Amino acid sequence: MKVAEIGEFGLIDLLARMIAGTRSQQSLSWQNLVLGIGDDAAVWRGDASLQLATVDSLIQDVHFSLEIMPWYDLGWKALAVNLSDIAAMGGVPKYVLVALALPGETEVEDIEEFCRGMLALADQQDVALVGGDTCRAPLVTVTTTVLGKGAGDGQKILARSAAQPGDRVAVTGFLGGAAAGLEMLRQGLEITSEAAEASRQAFLKPFPRVKEGQLLVKNGVKAAIDISDGLVADLGHLCQSSGVSARIQVDRVPLHPGVRDNFPDRALELVLSGGEDYELLFTAQDEVVQRVRQASKCPVTVIGEIEAGKGGVVYLVDVAGEPVNLAKMGWEHFQVE
Amino acid sequence: MKVAEIGEFGLIDLLARMIAGTRSQQSLSWQNLVLGIGDDAAVWRGDASLQLATVDSLIQDVHFSLEIMPWYDLGWKALAVNLSDIAAMGGVPKYVLVALALPGETEVEDIEEFCRGMLALADQQDVALVGGDTCRAPLVTVTTTVLGKGAGDGQKILARSAAQPGDRVAVTGFLGGAAAGLEMLRQGLEITSEAAEASRQAFLKPFPRVKEGQLLVKNGVKAAIDISDGLVADLGHLCQSSGVSARIQVDRVPLHPGVRDNFPDRALELVLSGGEDYELLFTAQDEVVQRVRQASKCPVTVIGEIEAGKGGVVYLVDVAGEPVNLAKMGWEHFQVE
Repeated sequence: MKVAEIGEFGLIDLLARMIAGTRSQQSLSWQNLVLGIGDDAAVWRGDASLQLATVDSLIQDVHFSLEIMPWYDLGWKALAVNLSDIAAMGGVPKYVLVALALPGETEVEDIEEFCRGMLALADQQDVALVGGDTCRAPLVTVTTTVLGKGAGDGQKILARSAAQPGDRVAVTGFLGGAAAGLEMLRQGLEITSEAAEASRQAFLKPFPRVKEGQLLVKNGVKAAIDISDGLVADLGHLCQSSGVSARIQVDRVPLHPGVRDNFPDRALELVLSGGEDYELLFTAQDEVVQRVRQASKCPVTVIGEIEAGKGGVVYLVDVAGEPVNLAKMGWEHFQVE
Repeated sequence: MKVAEIGEFGLIDLLARMIAGTRSQQSLSWQNLVLGIGDDAAVWRGDASLQLATVDSLIQDVHFSLEIMPWYDLGWKALAVNLSDIAAMGGVPKYVLVALALPGETEVEDIEEFCRGMLALADQQDVALVGGDTCRAPLVTVTTTVLGKGAGDGQKILARSAAQPGDRVAVTGFLGGAAAGLEMLRQGLEITSEAAEASRQAFLKPFPRVKEGQLLVKNGVKAAIDISDGLVADLGHLCQSSGVSARIQVDRVPLHPGVRDNFPDRALELVLSGGEDYELLFTAQDEVVQRVRQASKCPVTVIGEIEAGKGGVVYLVDVAGEPVNLAKMGWEHFQVE
């Protein structure tokens, strides 16, 4: 069987099962592990606080095209997507390592721009770039590792597996902006409005919700994921981990203005299945969500509820409570009634 | 200017300078940093002990060929080269994350083999595989991150910058084996002797000197590096970091039996510039080296001395003390008198 046939998530499941099979009871490393493969970051007990680690690769012509992605933004985004994973755990990012594979004909000036972009975000987030690896390769490949720790007393994190029936489902910010931005860049559309420029930025320079993740932990939220694959796909992952289902009222999903203005006909598709928004999706009791809304500078919107039911299933309903169906959601298939 | 013109080490220097320029005095992450870019691993002060992190990529047709490298060995080696970096710091490896980029037509069975190879070494070294990333790519790319901590009381490490004039230069094990193994595999030579098989294994399944690295720290060694680029190249890196030069008596360098038996005419080249042996090179006062020799189960050989002099220069001398010159050393140029 080919890897393409089992897909990314099939491959992750396979690896997770193999790893679980060799997990040693005697090993100190395994004893201290809190969360391994299957959440946004790995978590283990350090000397005095929980430690977090996450890694992500961006590969030329798979995850980005140098025709539409400036090198500065590539450096920014490579770090941003990893900071977003730490944000989804409610953690504090501390250190970053970068493995950079490049064709020999890459311009040194381009690498300087890449480095400037990454360092600008690192500086803003108080993260130190402390190591890495460089080598030649036919395609540009950027693999970024971010290490962090638990916020506050260092003992609490957010997990995909903590959603409970009765929880509200909420998101930070607006959705679909990155997908709209990518479409505009791909189609070479002129950026004439503020909303269009905001979409372009949402795709090229996503801003990780690190502060918001910490705010969630502080206010008692326990379950979260970041929206990288798309709202419905990522909510599906969270429901799968928690053994619950979710019901989303699609008209409540906060639409990015770039979607509304530029792709009114495809709004539902972009907002539900457009990936790379890097907003946080979380679930909690209503009073906890209200506390978060009051404390947060960024908009927080309730879009649905968690229900007992088949794990991983996301039901989409309209304003009248009637089922909505969409053909393509997220980057991989998911179950929808 | 192109990246190929400044080379790998030129690129690393450039990045290190740019990072140093943005290093913030106010940042807690930077305040706790002990060693950033320029050693085998990054080191920072954690809650109670020094923390280590290292990352390395293996790229198909750059670092390995699937025609000669079985998937099991690829998994083993991807972890081994990173464990070797932790060994070179005298640390204890604890956790590993793997970013795996694969063509869709890769066989799932091959990935299982890859995983088995990595897990076999992880289990042996008490390291837990806790996270990663999978994605598609035209070439197989494996980027491995290993996290560790200081051994013993957690406060001492080995550094490239700690070599002192008057130190002996010593190495663990035998050199040139991996280069001989690669040559045999490339040329399709039949593996008929035990020495040839040992060379093949040295290339395909290098054994990281983790225990030996910890033994060095325990016995008071302060300066070390692992031999990945080649003896002379890596000794050059260590001398550069320490601002010293080194004098190596080439006939004292311990020859791997696979070199002696199969490539007698190229022995000097393979042993001095053949990379990927993943033995440890260290420097210390003679009495410290003698203590290490007595405590170590693996052979430890003194091959030369550290001298005050131009930083980074490695002098090669024969048994009579006369200069030896070789055209090609390591994977990058280095200074030699």
